[in-house]
Amino acid sequence: MVPSTCQLTVLPDGQTGEVRTGATVRDALAQLGVDVIAPCGGEGTCGKCRVQATGDLAPPTREEVALFTSAQLASGLRLACQAQIQGRVEVTVPASSRPAAMRIVLEGTARDVPVAPAVTKKAVSMPPQTLAEPYARVEHLRRCGELDPHLHAGLGLLQRLPAIFDAAGGQVTAVMRDQVLLDVEPGDTSGQCLGVALDLGTTTVVASLVDLNSGRELAHAATVNQQVRFGHDVVARINATLEAGDGLARVRDAARQSLAQVVAEVVAKAGVAASDVYEAVLVGNATMLHLALGISPASLGHLPYIATVGDPVVAPAAELGLALHPAACLYALPNIAGFVGADTVGAILAAGLDEDDGRVRVLADIGTNCEIALRLGPRLLVTSTPAGPAFEGARIACGMYAAPGAIEKVRIEGQVRCRTIAGEPARGLCGSGLVDATAELLRLGIVDMTGRLVDTDELDSALPAAVSERLVARDDGNAFHLTPPGAGQPVFLSQRDVRELQLAKAAIRTGIDLLLEHAGVRPEAVDELCLAGGFGSYIDKTHAMRLGLIPTLPSDRLSYIGNGALVGARLALVSGAMRQRGNQVARQAEHLQLAHTPDFQQRFSEAMLFE
Amino acid sequence: MVPSTCQLTVLPDGQTGEVRTGATVRDALAQLGVDVIAPCGGEGTCGKCRVQATGDLAPPTREEVALFTSAQLASGLRLACQAQIQGRVEVTVPASSRPAAMRIVLEGTARDVPVAPAVTKKAVSMPPQTLAEPYARVEHLRRCGELDPHLHAGLGLLQRLPAIFDAAGGQVTAVMRDQVLLDVEPGDTSGQCLGVALDLGTTTVVASLVDLNSGRELAHAATVNQQVRFGHDVVARINATLEAGDGLARVRDAARQSLAQVVAEVVAKAGVAASDVYEAVLVGNATMLHLALGISPASLGHLPYIATVGDPVVAPAAELGLALHPAACLYALPNIAGFVGADTVGAILAAGLDEDDGRVRVLADIGTNCEIALRLGPRLLVTSTPAGPAFEGARIACGMYAAPGAIEKVRIEGQVRCRTIAGEPARGLCGSGLVDATAELLRLGIVDMTGRLVDTDELDSALPAAVSERLVARDDGNAFHLTPPGAGQPVFLSQRDVRELQLAKAAIRTGIDLLLEHAGVRPEAVDELCLAGGFGSYIDKTHAMRLGLIPTLPSDRLSYIGNGALVGARLALVSGAMRQRGNQVARQAEHLQLAHTPDFQQRFSEAMLFE
Repeated sequence: MVPSTCQLTVLPDGQTGEVRTGATVRDALAQLGVDVIAPCGGEGTCGKCRVQATGDLAPPTREEVALFTSAQLASGLRLACQAQIQGRVEVTVPASSRPAAMRIVLEGTARDVPVAPAVTKKAVSMPPQTLAEPYARVEHLRRCGELDPHLHAGLGLLQRLPAIFDAAGGQVTAVMRDQVLLDVEPGDTSGQCLGVALDLGTTTVVASLVDLNSGRELAHAATVNQQVRFGHDVVARINATLEAGDGLARVRDAARQSLAQVVAEVVAKAGVAASDVYEAVLVGNATMLHLALGISPASLGHLPYIATVGDPVVAPAAELGLALHPAACLYALPNIAGFVGADTVGAILAAGLDEDDGRVRVLADIGTNCEIALRLGPRLLVTSTPAGPAFEGARIACGMYAAPGAIEKVRIEGQVRCRTIAGEPARGLCGSGLVDATAELLRLGIVDMTGRLVDTDELDSALPAAVSERLVARDDGNAFHLTPPGAGQPVFLSQRDVRELQLAKAAIRTGIDLLLEHAGVRPEAVDELCLAGGFGSYIDKTHAMRLGLIPTLPSDRLSYIGNGALVGARLALVSGAMRQRGNQVARQAEHLQLAHTPDFQQRFSEAMLFE
Repeated sequence: MVPSTCQLTVLPDGQTGEVRTGATVRDALAQLGVDVIAPCGGEGTCGKCRVQATGDLAPPTREEVALFTSAQLASGLRLACQAQIQGRVEVTVPASSRPAAMRIVLEGTARDVPVAPAVTKKAVSMPPQTLAEPYARVEHLRRCGELDPHLHAGLGLLQRLPAIFDAAGGQVTAVMRDQVLLDVEPGDTSGQCLGVALDLGTTTVVASLVDLNSGRELAHAATVNQQVRFGHDVVARINATLEAGDGLARVRDAARQSLAQVVAEVVAKAGVAASDVYEAVLVGNATMLHLALGISPASLGHLPYIATVGDPVVAPAAELGLALHPAACLYALPNIAGFVGADTVGAILAAGLDEDDGRVRVLADIGTNCEIALRLGPRLLVTSTPAGPAFEGARIACGMYAAPGAIEKVRIEGQVRCRTIAGEPARGLCGSGLVDATAELLRLGIVDMTGRLVDTDELDSALPAAVSERLVARDDGNAFHLTPPGAGQPVFLSQRDVRELQLAKAAIRTGIDLLLEHAGVRPEAVDELCLAGGFGSYIDKTHAMRLGLIPTLPSDRLSYIGNGALVGARLALVSGAMRQRGNQVARQAEHLQLAHTPDFQQRFSEAMLFE
């Protein structure tokens, strides 16, 4: 049966098109290329995809009734992920429901590594051959260019080579990837040689375009992982692949489309052609890598959480739907174990934990999962704990990705002061803002040690009214408003938000403590604690310690490297030696399964408290 | 315009079908799947594709008029490659015009090499993993099987692995090609591991199916290279690729179809499945390899005769149209130079000339091209000379491939005695028979030193009538009948045949002499002269020396290794070490371009004489 279609008009743009009758507004908008955000994965729980819709729509779902007042519903307010189209419809999509240009922390402390990428170019002059030099033309190229004698070409290039050599008139540029001749280009094109580093996060996908001659970043771009429509964590994604029929293909394609989209954005930003990109390096957790590669992650979804492949994987980029240079390969960094993936290998490279410098160093890479690594002399120990998506804005009432308008800093000194990303009007709270707000409320006694937002009558009477008036009672518990009453979209911290943060910080802290204990290292013996993650901006060190997210250490022992996974991918892109280091890390790291020990459960409960 | 069709009936089979009006009988027969032989490549000169045709045909061509008497033409005798179909036609194809089952010399003196093929299998028991062993499943396989720690799988296999591991229940067989995991099979299949060696000759295509566990040959098969319809030598083939449009594709596909055909035959003979064949090793001259690989050989067709690729080429067998195991690769041995190809590398391996054993050794691999190699201490010198297809039966009046019914031995002692391959009634003359017949006639003075078949009145009067009566005068010169008058199909040696043999032997001998001179080696200093080639059977040593084909040497210094190229391919199939040796040979051999020196022309003219 051919599904019938009906007309959808999108406001304020005025775009119009035929969409499938019976689709949700979100899916119908997607058909027209209009994205709406959905941190909850389209479950109708986060309320982030609200739109104004009029026309022939199915009645509100239970989720919409729970979220909106009847007046709001009467005015046409709906959730795009819930409202079902039955005929001609007009939909207004507010800016707050559209994905914003995201700010991703990229600076990091990129290590100083000599630029010696796997992919290189060399211009070669090839004088005509004589009977005295009967070498094959590939050999002639190698001799004239003083190239690696083991450099060899694949069949596809060999079939194109006669025409290339005939047309080039003696001046060509060899494009090489280690010992593989990727392409021979007419003329001297050696000045332009690009690669792209890709971080496929569970929530966020980031690309960094790199000039392989200089190692310099030309542009970066970020987008939401389209897989969020299948759920917000890897378990939900794995379960979605188990759907009969094309479950795996659908989840895989969502990842690949996200990668393709972010690559398209980054080359457009830099004003270069995607066909000048000769290599992509991919990081992500084990589940994300398996999905992008089209390998079932099912065995990662149940005990004993086994990946199919841990080795680095090299595949033609085109097989992953990346329209780069036709001969471009994708290099996926290796995984260490089921829940310590290539993203951790990248962060370890970025933080320099692959080397023993005599110091005791800890890395905590905070995302939906938190991976923790410990460098102790020749040993490298790793573990992971499920932190949940709180730091990426999901399951937080006013949570959002680290995009313009997100509150990233909160100080309460006589009054509530917030700083937003890009200075835009506040429209939500990102990870670092969540830590700041909670730490400040804890300091002022508005949140107690158990994580409870106190009642108004428990407030310190010395608090100024400008602060105390922000504490309000809601149906689902107390909440503290970060934005002034009546000033645009209200952004607040709810009781549930604090609970989510407690779960996250307990997981992270327990992981750090148990890893140190397992290795026999006292917390004060840690010479450096390095935080990584793309949760908005630098987490305030004092606040992180006040919340007990990390052990108490002298401030100068704390460092921050931003999106370490992506920095690591960039390092592997510009340095074959770093790529080898990544392989050593994956092979040598000792993996501890802490999260499933009775000890962990006990310690986790204790760590829920704010010390 | 859609070409019109008409009905063709093939006798004696009675097969009927629609064919294209305007096609030659040969092309029309091909449309119905009926092959006719055509050593001359369809030029109308060899007269081998004669058929009896009645119906609506175009008048005889100039070539047919030259070849047949008017009575023959009136009786319906035609050349399949010339006669053009204009309407309904009945064609009788005699057995002598159909390709016969060919006997190819395969015995050779295969070197004793340890069986250590690139492709191996190992059965592995994989107990279930626990939380304490969080290795990826590929790593678990490596550990349980004590496999190479660098063994890795390509993306295609990785995508299939989860299902394979889940279904296998702990017992699998790893199929490996060097450090690449080709496949993982459920259960223990390690007993069955096959490979195929392929020799793509200009004229003949041969396959040898090998058990990679034992190194033993299971079966072999041979067929005519379907490219002969584009001409009988590499120059004709190269020219055919230059035809506008799909010239290269047509010549390429003819090679690939020949390979596919001979592979299908050899697995059918052995009673195994083609999908159990995990690797193919290919040899052939540089032009043949380029064509099979789909690489334009154009630069091999003109000075300075440059190949595009000389290195060994590894490609998925499926890309060459070979339906082996889906992950099977084809490994093409390397070329040395434009006219010294992978077939010579194979013959050098078969003859052991890759090693310096302290002796001065010469190898002459005789085919349409003759390649000559000289081992002299650490040096390996190679050259090639154009011998023409006489030794493979082409351009010889009664010439044929080394198939049943070919005269392979001739002795004239009071009477003319011939031995045919498989003892079948004589229907032609193969390479070794051509040498024998000419040498015997030379000894008896029936052929003189200049190569002239004498007139009847010049014969030694002591010759018995049973011999002298065989010398007859024909329109195109004298001829000597090898078969008795009135006994089946006449097989004779013509004046032109002797001239063809003179050209071939002059080329070969000049090549040997000049190579030795260039290296400063006197012919009597040669410790071993090794002949290789698939020209029917061992060439009689005495006769070869009598004709001057090779320098005069003590008989025990002459050896014969049969189809050395194929033996070399088998060696590379069963031994990774021999494969490496082949690469060294290709890189280290010094190539001499003798055929284009003035010296060569001078010496060639002298060598035309029988000494």
